[in-house]
Amino acid sequence: MNKIAIAIHGGAGTIVKSKITAELEKEYRDGLENALQAGWKIVQSAGNSLDAVETSVCELENNPLFNAGRGSVFTHDSKNEMDASIMDGKTHNAGAVALIQNVKNPIKLARLVMEKTEHFLLAGDGAINFAQEMKIEFAPDEYFSTDFRYQQLLEAQKENRVQLDHSEKEERQNQKSKIRNQKSKIQNPIGTVGAVACDSLGNLAAATSTGGMTNKKFGRIGDTPIIGAGTYADNQTCAVSCTGHGEFFMRTAAAYDVAARMKYKNLGLIEAANETIEHLRIIGGEGGLIAVDNLGNFALPFNSEGMYRAFITSDSEISIEIYR
Amino acid sequence: MNKIAIAIHGGAGTIVKSKITAELEKEYRDGLENALQAGWKIVQSAGNSLDAVETSVCELENNPLFNAGRGSVFTHDSKNEMDASIMDGKTHNAGAVALIQNVKNPIKLARLVMEKTEHFLLAGDGAINFAQEMKIEFAPDEYFSTDFRYQQLLEAQKENRVQLDHSEKEERQNQKSKIRNQKSKIQNPIGTVGAVACDSLGNLAAATSTGGMTNKKFGRIGDTPIIGAGTYADNQTCAVSCTGHGEFFMRTAAAYDVAARMKYKNLGLIEAANETIEHLRIIGGEGGLIAVDNLGNFALPFNSEGMYRAFITSDSEISIEIYR
Repeated sequence: MNKIAIAIHGGAGTIVKSKITAELEKEYRDGLENALQAGWKIVQSAGNSLDAVETSVCELENNPLFNAGRGSVFTHDSKNEMDASIMDGKTHNAGAVALIQNVKNPIKLARLVMEKTEHFLLAGDGAINFAQEMKIEFAPDEYFSTDFRYQQLLEAQKENRVQLDHSEKEERQNQKSKIRNQKSKIQNPIGTVGAVACDSLGNLAAATSTGGMTNKKFGRIGDTPIIGAGTYADNQTCAVSCTGHGEFFMRTAAAYDVAARMKYKNLGLIEAANETIEHLRIIGGEGGLIAVDNLGNFALPFNSEGMYRAFITSDSEISIEIYR
Repeated sequence: MNKIAIAIHGGAGTIVKSKITAELEKEYRDGLENALQAGWKIVQSAGNSLDAVETSVCELENNPLFNAGRGSVFTHDSKNEMDASIMDGKTHNAGAVALIQNVKNPIKLARLVMEKTEHFLLAGDGAINFAQEMKIEFAPDEYFSTDFRYQQLLEAQKENRVQLDHSEKEERQNQKSKIRNQKSKIQNPIGTVGAVACDSLGNLAAATSTGGMTNKKFGRIGDTPIIGAGTYADNQTCAVSCTGHGEFFMRTAAAYDVAARMKYKNLGLIEAANETIEHLRIIGGEGGLIAVDNLGNFALPFNSEGMYRAFITSDSEISIEIYR
């Protein structure tokens, strides 16, 4: 039997070490452990990696501590708008959804896109119509809403208002970068959850889910629902789930880049994953990723202060970490 | 001065050679020549590659023969819904829009996303709000609508209706693949336009625009607005614009894959581009791409019956081709 492995993440860089309390840290660690165990049970009992990553990501979506599903950050219009994707390393089939509201588990909808349509990515109202046709579980706004995230929105919006007080001259000078700057002041841009797994048959799968950026406007889609950027899986190389400043992961096709370094440069998983994250650091992209290969090896590199992460394999104990 | 080059495409595999008339072929060739010359003028007069690819793609969007901008195919709801992206090989900045309606030139909106926001991809109503804020030119439904494309929609919908006449037993058997099959019967899934250029400073840029798939539902987003899948540009390697069955280009991160083969396998542009398209053929993905490197070399591989394409460089005459 193949060495089995599963790794999960709950986002990179969202909490500064000096500001976390022991109680809150324990809650995060418990949340990670629950999610990891849920997926681990599946691969351990000869289940497949796709079911495992979907299940672990569902658990993280259901936990309001993480920025995905319940507990997603708020958009500028005070909505919880979510993205998710999943990919099967055996078939290279994939499914993703973007800008969806009120779907209880976005990762389940992504899997339905993969299995019930010829498409990879559905977005907005169209994706919701598809969800209704699939009779997926919806939840009301209150289910997703958390006071913690709402406070983050208010803070972000307060900072934006300050920006609008520029003098007219400054305004003209700054016209080009105005919308840019609105974003750069937003806190917690890099909350995401994800899972990667290698099952007993050596099949790989990856899944990623997010509530996006606090105070986001204009229907912004980040790397999470983009196959090749936020999520990638290929049995011949690796399964990858990313978390970080999405636009940097998009411009480097970060998830696929790990696989490309393995197959074209003949690097091992850890070296390839480290190179991808080091390249991101050099160009100013903050974040991390989790990756597993078909031998059950894993890599969890990040260039931020921390990354909520956990892993377990058939020859190692469970490990749960937050900081470096 | 660097060798300058520009190449454009107007989609792959959209017309069967035996069915095209001499008049229609001339119209397509004239359309390609006009679009190529518009971009060529810019790089030839020491303009930059970004302006060149945007201008060429605008011309193709304005020409109702091509599936982008005016002349876009119709969605299931009889709308023209468009996607576009652009990337700057020097800065690796990029902008893209998806599922937008009534924007006269989607590629102009993609460029504004690149230059006026910190984001890469805006979609749907949010992208339209951004377009309004940018005061971009809108056009009414009638501007985009062409009788040719509307007939394609009616044909596609007619075929779908046949599918709904399945017996109840067949219906149950086919339940899983029903939505899949709706798509596979749709004609012309692979109409797109795009441009790549290398300017006198050796700066590369790529742009791609599309009206998507005829009769598409559920807010499907293909590869065109996905950086790394439909469009990619990096001065160190190449600029790429893809056209074809989008989901295959997404699962292989096709545009970035050409660059990855160059930098990680040390292949030249032509060999890298050919390998990417050959891999697509092997996995059943129909289409092609245009690519240019920073020495002004270009590659235009495709695995379909044809690809509307044209190129010109500072040491070659203009070339316009449709078939193999």
